[in-house]
Amino acid sequence: MMKDIKILAGTSHPKLIQDICKILKTQPLKVTHTRFKNDNLFCRIEENIRDDDIFVIQTSVKPVNEYLMELYIMLDTAKYASAGRITAVLPYFPYVRSDQKDQPRIPITARLVADQIALAGADRVLSLDFHSPQVHGFFRIPVDQLQAQAVLVEHVQQTKRKFDVVVSPDAGGVKRARAYAQRLGCSLAVMDKRREKNDDRVYMGFIIGDVQNKAALIVDDEISTGQTLFHTTDSLLKAGAVTVSAFCTHAILAGDCLEKLKKSKLEELIVTDSIPLLGKPSAKITILSVSSLLAQGIMRIHKGESLSELFMHPFRI
Amino acid sequence: MMKDIKILAGTSHPKLIQDICKILKTQPLKVTHTRFKNDNLFCRIEENIRDDDIFVIQTSVKPVNEYLMELYIMLDTAKYASAGRITAVLPYFPYVRSDQKDQPRIPITARLVADQIALAGADRVLSLDFHSPQVHGFFRIPVDQLQAQAVLVEHVQQTKRKFDVVVSPDAGGVKRARAYAQRLGCSLAVMDKRREKNDDRVYMGFIIGDVQNKAALIVDDEISTGQTLFHTTDSLLKAGAVTVSAFCTHAILAGDCLEKLKKSKLEELIVTDSIPLLGKPSAKITILSVSSLLAQGIMRIHKGESLSELFMHPFRI
Amino acid sequence: MMKDIKILAGTSHPKLIQDICKILKTQPLKVTHTRFKNDNLFCRIEENIRDDDIFVIQTSVKPVNEYLMELYIMLDTAKYASAGRITAVLPYFPYVRSDQKDQPRIPITARLVADQIALAGADRVLSLDFHSPQVHGFFRIPVDQLQAQAVLVEHVQQTKRKFDVVVSPDAGGVKRARAYAQRLGCSLAVMDKRREKNDDRVYMGFIIGDVQNKAALIVDDEISTGQTLFHTTDSLLKAGAVTVSAFCTHAILAGDCLEKLKKSKLEELIVTDSIPLLGKPSAKITILSVSSLLAQGIMRIHKGESLSELFMHPFRI
Amino acid sequence: MMKDIKILAGTSHPKLIQDICKILKTQPLKVTHTRFKNDNLFCRIEENIRDDDIFVIQTSVKPVNEYLMELYIMLDTAKYASAGRITAVLPYFPYVRSDQKDQPRIPITARLVADQIALAGADRVLSLDFHSPQVHGFFRIPVDQLQAQAVLVEHVQQTKRKFDVVVSPDAGGVKRARAYAQRLGCSLAVMDKRREKNDDRVYMGFIIGDVQNKAALIVDDEISTGQTLFHTTDSLLKAGAVTVSAFCTHAILAGDCLEKLKKSKLEELIVTDSIPLLGKPSAKITILSVSSLLAQGIMRIHKGESLSELFMHPFRI
Amino acid sequence: MMKDIKILAGTSHPKLIQDICKILKTQPLKVTHTRFKNDNLFCRIEENIRDDDIFVIQTSVKPVNEYLMELYIMLDTAKYASAGRITAVLPYFPYVRSDQKDQPRIPITARLVADQIALAGADRVLSLDFHSPQVHGFFRIPVDQLQAQAVLVEHVQQTKRKFDVVVSPDAGGVKRARAYAQRLGCSLAVMDKRREKNDDRVYMGFIIGDVQNKAALIVDDEISTGQTLFHTTDSLLKAGAVTVSAFCTHAILAGDCLEKLKKSKLEELIVTDSIPLLGKPSAKITILSVSSLLAQGIMRIHKGESLSELFMHPFRI
Amino acid sequence: MMKDIKILAGTSHPKLIQDICKILKTQPLKVTHTRFKNDNLFCRIEENIRDDDIFVIQTSVKPVNEYLMELYIMLDTAKYASAGRITAVLPYFPYVRSDQKDQPRIPITARLVADQIALAGADRVLSLDFHSPQVHGFFRIPVDQLQAQAVLVEHVQQTKRKFDVVVSPDAGGVKRARAYAQRLGCSLAVMDKRREKNDDRVYMGFIIGDVQNKAALIVDDEISTGQTLFHTTDSLLKAGAVTVSAFCTHAILAGDCLEKLKKSKLEELIVTDSIPLLGKPSAKITILSVSSLLAQGIMRIHKGESLSELFMHPFRI
Repeated sequence: MMKDIKILAGTSHPKLIQDICKILKTQPLKVTHTRFKNDNLFCRIEENIRDDDIFVIQTSVKPVNEYLMELYIMLDTAKYASAGRITAVLPYFPYVRSDQKDQPRIPITARLVADQIALAGADRVLSLDFHSPQVHGFFRIPVDQLQAQAVLVEHVQQTKRKFDVVVSPDAGGVKRARAYAQRLGCSLAVMDKRREKNDDRVYMGFIIGDVQNKAALIVDDEISTGQTLFHTTDSLLKAGAVTVSAFCTHAILAGDCLEKLKKSKLEELIVTDSIPLLGKPSAKITILSVSSLLAQGIMRIHKGESLSELFMHPFRI
Repeated sequence: MMKDIKILAGTSHPKLIQDICKILKTQPLKVTHTRFKNDNLFCRIEENIRDDDIFVIQTSVKPVNEYLMELYIMLDTAKYASAGRITAVLPYFPYVRSDQKDQPRIPITARLVADQIALAGADRVLSLDFHSPQVHGFFRIPVDQLQAQAVLVEHVQQTKRKFDVVVSPDAGGVKRARAYAQRLGCSLAVMDKRREKNDDRVYMGFIIGDVQNKAALIVDDEISTGQTLFHTTDSLLKAGAVTVSAFCTHAILAGDCLEKLKKSKLEELIVTDSIPLLGKPSAKITILSVSSLLAQGIMRIHKGESLSELFMHPFRI
Repeated sequence: MMKDIKILAGTSHPKLIQDICKILKTQPLKVTHTRFKNDNLFCRIEENIRDDDIFVIQTSVKPVNEYLMELYIMLDTAKYASAGRITAVLPYFPYVRSDQKDQPRIPITARLVADQIALAGADRVLSLDFHSPQVHGFFRIPVDQLQAQAVLVEHVQQTKRKFDVVVSPDAGGVKRARAYAQRLGCSLAVMDKRREKNDDRVYMGFIIGDVQNKAALIVDDEISTGQTLFHTTDSLLKAGAVTVSAFCTHAILAGDCLEKLKKSKLEELIVTDSIPLLGKPSAKITILSVSSLLAQGIMRIHKGESLSELFMHPFRI
Repeated sequence: MMKDIKILAGTSHPKLIQDICKILKTQPLKVTHTRFKNDNLFCRIEENIRDDDIFVIQTSVKPVNEYLMELYIMLDTAKYASAGRITAVLPYFPYVRSDQKDQPRIPITARLVADQIALAGADRVLSLDFHSPQVHGFFRIPVDQLQAQAVLVEHVQQTKRKFDVVVSPDAGGVKRARAYAQRLGCSLAVMDKRREKNDDRVYMGFIIGDVQNKAALIVDDEISTGQTLFHTTDSLLKAGAVTVSAFCTHAILAGDCLEKLKKSKLEELIVTDSIPLLGKPSAKITILSVSSLLAQGIMRIHKGESLSELFMHPFRI
Repeated sequence: MMKDIKILAGTSHPKLIQDICKILKTQPLKVTHTRFKNDNLFCRIEENIRDDDIFVIQTSVKPVNEYLMELYIMLDTAKYASAGRITAVLPYFPYVRSDQKDQPRIPITARLVADQIALAGADRVLSLDFHSPQVHGFFRIPVDQLQAQAVLVEHVQQTKRKFDVVVSPDAGGVKRARAYAQRLGCSLAVMDKRREKNDDRVYMGFIIGDVQNKAALIVDDEISTGQTLFHTTDSLLKAGAVTVSAFCTHAILAGDCLEKLKKSKLEELIVTDSIPLLGKPSAKITILSVSSLLAQGIMRIHKGESLSELFMHPFRI
Repeated sequence: MMKDIKILAGTSHPKLIQDICKILKTQPLKVTHTRFKNDNLFCRIEENIRDDDIFVIQTSVKPVNEYLMELYIMLDTAKYASAGRITAVLPYFPYVRSDQKDQPRIPITARLVADQIALAGADRVLSLDFHSPQVHGFFRIPVDQLQAQAVLVEHVQQTKRKFDVVVSPDAGGVKRARAYAQRLGCSLAVMDKRREKNDDRVYMGFIIGDVQNKAALIVDDEISTGQTLFHTTDSLLKAGAVTVSAFCTHAILAGDCLEKLKKSKLEELIVTDSIPLLGKPSAKITILSVSSLLAQGIMRIHKGESLSELFMHPFRI
């Protein structure tokens, strides 16, 4: 076991880090983050970290590339300051959706980021809900991928919510939706999106599966502009669903998503605090915290305990 | 451009290599493959290959690990014999389904194989229909992944076959099925498999989507024992489908698959020759050749031409 | 020699790239740069680049980290699109001043960037006027570092300007100033900055060397806020200098630099177009173009010709 | 020192692993080895191994490539399951005789395997009696190569056997034979094999050295088909040797070796259990166990104690 | 923390190693260094070092390449003898002045040495006063660079010496001289060397800065032939300096430096024992020991304590 | 094929390089080798080498470590000067006898040198007569190992010399001696050295094999002090040999070897010019040149032609 757990905090999500530290009964390392006039980032760790067990926490949120570069610089600083072991804790993994080459001459940026994180000094990664499970294979260092599923299931049990059908908003997400359906004892449906012409607007689609007279829960790994989600909601209601809610782990809420949410017929949007809420919170949004899940992950990595049971049960430290 | 195209042939699929060489109007390199009495493999390339553009062709078929080790040894031999550039041509990629860590403490063997292929000497990979598109991101060398879709579409057009609905046999394959449906102008359905108890037998499931009075085409990347495929066939017929056919790129046909195929209600099983047919061919099986597709890929890599148009149109060399 | 020179353009400095392409009598590759709603960058190269000799041009300017990540993504895209050779052309190298560890637990970000550029796919680097010559040693790939000195000397000769003393604005830059003094036939002086208390404001300092009745030229690798430069100007005038001009290769011009320039007693600020001018140009600023120098470098790398004579003589393609 | 010794057992040699575990007073890790219907191997470690000191034990025996791939997969699994340190324990090293390039365009597979073992996750190797001592230099990770010599010497002392001359069956093995001769106080002889024509049959050869009226012990690192050994036996007897015995560390016993042994004039074949005996044991075979030697090696690696004294003295744990 | 501190001594500087070991209250590891008749070096470590915290001490002194190769061989030996962690302790770093490419087609040998030290097995480096601070960035392993400044300041305080002006002997050293001036409360001056023709003789130069009636201290990282130093001394005296002394960390004293020192007007030459004094000591030379500084560095690395305070205060173990 | 063959000459063996260049009808590159006063080596290549096919020639001779470091520096210089491909041509490979770990805690320096050569920039190696063939496996870059055997055989044929028995001077060399015996149609014998006590003096030994009334040729890869060779000569004569000659590829001739040769009963010592003759030549020494063999190797590598036939036949360019 390394000397001590020490938390090296990026600037992307102070609240989450505070919550994690509180659970771990520790304080983040003293660190000075600077942006020079020439727009270059810089950090100085103000305490000795030799041989310590360092956890660098940074999430991916707007401005994404600023926080990503800050992450790399923190890793580099910790490595050459002789950290004992460095774990990059990334609640929302940067560029996670850029995971395949479905057109010629495009990047697989999630792979590039995986390599750059290791190059910069990380010995391990702890993250949450990759877009696709295969992203795990992009790394050449050990990765623990936690799942927000357990957080949702615990919430549903505590609030005695009842859903009848879990809906995947597109073909790529059916496997995830299937897993949620099993845990929640629901049936499964999937949206089949069509685009009428070759433009970017997504048209309402057909629902594959039975949703009539059912309480539907759409599940997805992230919500960006919400366009897909709100269209799916409309389609489900048109197809006879009684109510439509949604659970999206990573709440990007880009563009005018919050405004559209307000107007939409979606009853409730459940998200986690893997990224800080941009814009004003809405009455329709329920935020579940992953701080306990991440704190558990950190503590178990430090102690060399298994993380696998985190996937199965509610967790307390 | 490297000096010359030279084909270094593994022993897994002589017929396919012969067909590819015929199209390329070349002969495979003279090579001696030996299995010593102590079960060690060995190869000797009998011609000079310095600075040549070497394409090592090997597919993954039973005995999988023998052919895989043979592949590694051929790559090693070519590398240290001063090949100019080495492309591993792998019609069916070994261990391609071991692409995620969905249980604790299991391997992601497709990533390991990707690394070992590069270590052994490959500068590039040319392959066909990965199980998931993210496998592309496991590599740190350029990969060209061809798709058998075009071969199927060409076949359907030539034979004037007509399908109404494309069916994914499980949640993980919905995205692929979606793509086929678009190309063939079909609607989409998906099987939702259930297991009643925690044993390995797969029970008949529910079909999500409308198949009544339709000609169904199940699509999958591979057919192993066929268990899933035959159950899906039964379910589709029970749900009102008129006929059920299937297209699976890689024809593993393990166990008693061929016998079961004979008895099953599946009308036609269309496969490719990415792996040699194990067992006797059946009247129900149609084999489409990928030799022209692979030969085209090889020639374009050698000449530095784009491969992307191979995905769109029928191809002749 | 690689097949063809192809220019892959980042979005940081369109004008400079246009000028370079004009000299090279070529067009940049067709490329689509996209920023998704979730703030992730993406690019797609719209033409085949297999086996070509790719030059990716990107400079470092505000927002620095956005352009840096864009650079990495372009390199990654070109590498896996099977470029023959990739040269990162970086007129102003990112994070070039973060080149030493003069405090405990800080990063050497220029080294990190050097490694990340190679990791992302660059085979070579072409850059201009590093802050310190040792930065060259951070790389494990060949680097050609051009020097704007020749551009300035040519300008001085053409405009028949006359300087008597070259001044380094601080101790770290004396070696560079010494080189300019030799080329321009001037004597040398150096500013010795003092800070009275431990705050960030730089106080006027002492001048080491004789500047009385002399036309002074301050030289530095870059001008950021200009604070040091304007203080040095005042000190030089107070010490009897007749006129004070300055040459700074990289014109960052951060904060209210341009306003201060207007008010300052600096007669002329000569810079290059290694980065695009932020803010409105000023009558006091003379901009020398490095496009010809960079175009020459690109052409000679492509043809395998020596770049060393670029350091000595005026250059035409 | 790592947390705990844990033994991860391959399926190639259950008896030897059982013996080693007994000496170490431990149980192997719970692990599930699976061969899927498509012939792909898979393993799942059923216990937490984070930060533990893992020893993966696998020998090389028919089917060699199956066990080798199983080894790679176990290493990969242990690495990404966050093992603290991984030692590959390989009683008989795979492909150990493929150690030189004595023909053009052949592989040095022992080097390839050395690299693949490290790539798959091994931090160290513990092995026994390489074919040539230089194989040690193929690795870039620390290797402990134990020698069965001490096991043989102990056996000879306990059984009060007496040999007069140690014989190398070919030129390549003279150095090893020399070492045994010194330890056993014997003189040395060497077989000079000749082939009359360019075919694969090995003809009886000349003996270099005096064997008349002597009790001869042939020593070699391994016995495969035994052809060389039995011919050497005949030659020695013809040259006047009184009795001929043999010690071969690794008992491959390929083809009809056991039958030939029965018929041959070799008095006794002494081997170790570095690989499991294939075929029925013969009255002429004496098997010495290396389990104690390997268990000692494992324990000393774990404790950070010197292994060098294992080469000199009998050993008990 | 690793098991034990163990010192592996090269043969370049026995006295310094003895002093360091005395302070650390330890004995160097028993090691046999051999030079074979064919001029090949060899070493054998005579004690077990498994899992220990090894510090390999070697300085760079004539014959430089012999000691450098000896260093590489010691590192290789320690690595494959299973050392727990290896720190290369290099009081004077080899080839440290070859740190930039200021002519075409020359090496940056300090970078090459940095890479070779890591390749040979070092996990970390502990060194003293690099020629330029950027050399730090040549490494991809953590480096602690101690500074002899503190040793000098302590000496000046103890001996109550008084200097008025710190002089850099050339442009490249102004930054270092600036730091000494601040610590000693002195003003700053710099020599501007000129060469009249293109030969190797350095001519007397101009002094930039005021030295009249002042006690001058020239500071430099090393003294080789002393040519520059003695010329600077003459120039300073001619310009009115009262006395001239010098502090050079690394005392190479090449050629007839000691004789010239005797004849020169330099009052005192203060050096450290980072390299052993070649030739007879002179009455004019004061040697300060860095053994305590290095011993402190070693102990703090071993214990995981911060080294940064070593830069600020006098140090006792 | 690379642009041009260019020879980059080390300073260890000017005569051999001159001969090679003459055969290749080329001039070595202009290069300046410098040894600074501080004993640091330096080189500057005085001509453009971009994209050229560089062959760096250096042999291993006293002072071994100086020439080795010079080699590394030349490789580094060529790499960063943008050479197209770099082949290290090493007639006598440095540290080639340090190829195994036959004692605890010693280095395998030949492996270290192999790695350092690749690190410094070599893409390939061309060498001659390794001590053991397994050294080939130490490299991760392609190696062509030429054999002086063919040079000797050609010489024997031309001079109509006749030998009856080939003798290996120790157990380790029997395999090499065996090969020579086959090529020369001789029988085989081997010396069995004994040491009476544990000191370094080698005592006369027993000969294994029949040498009576025979013309003996001792063969070895190198002759250092000659002690073994001269003892073997005496033993052979005592055992009835008529004449004793010797062929040693690499003529180190260390210590008083040449004097001893004069006094010894060895009739003729045949060597090659792989290393320059140290000391005065002796009437007893015949020197065969490997310049033609190496020139052929260089030319064939450049043209991408097979080198394997060089092993079989006399060679002319």
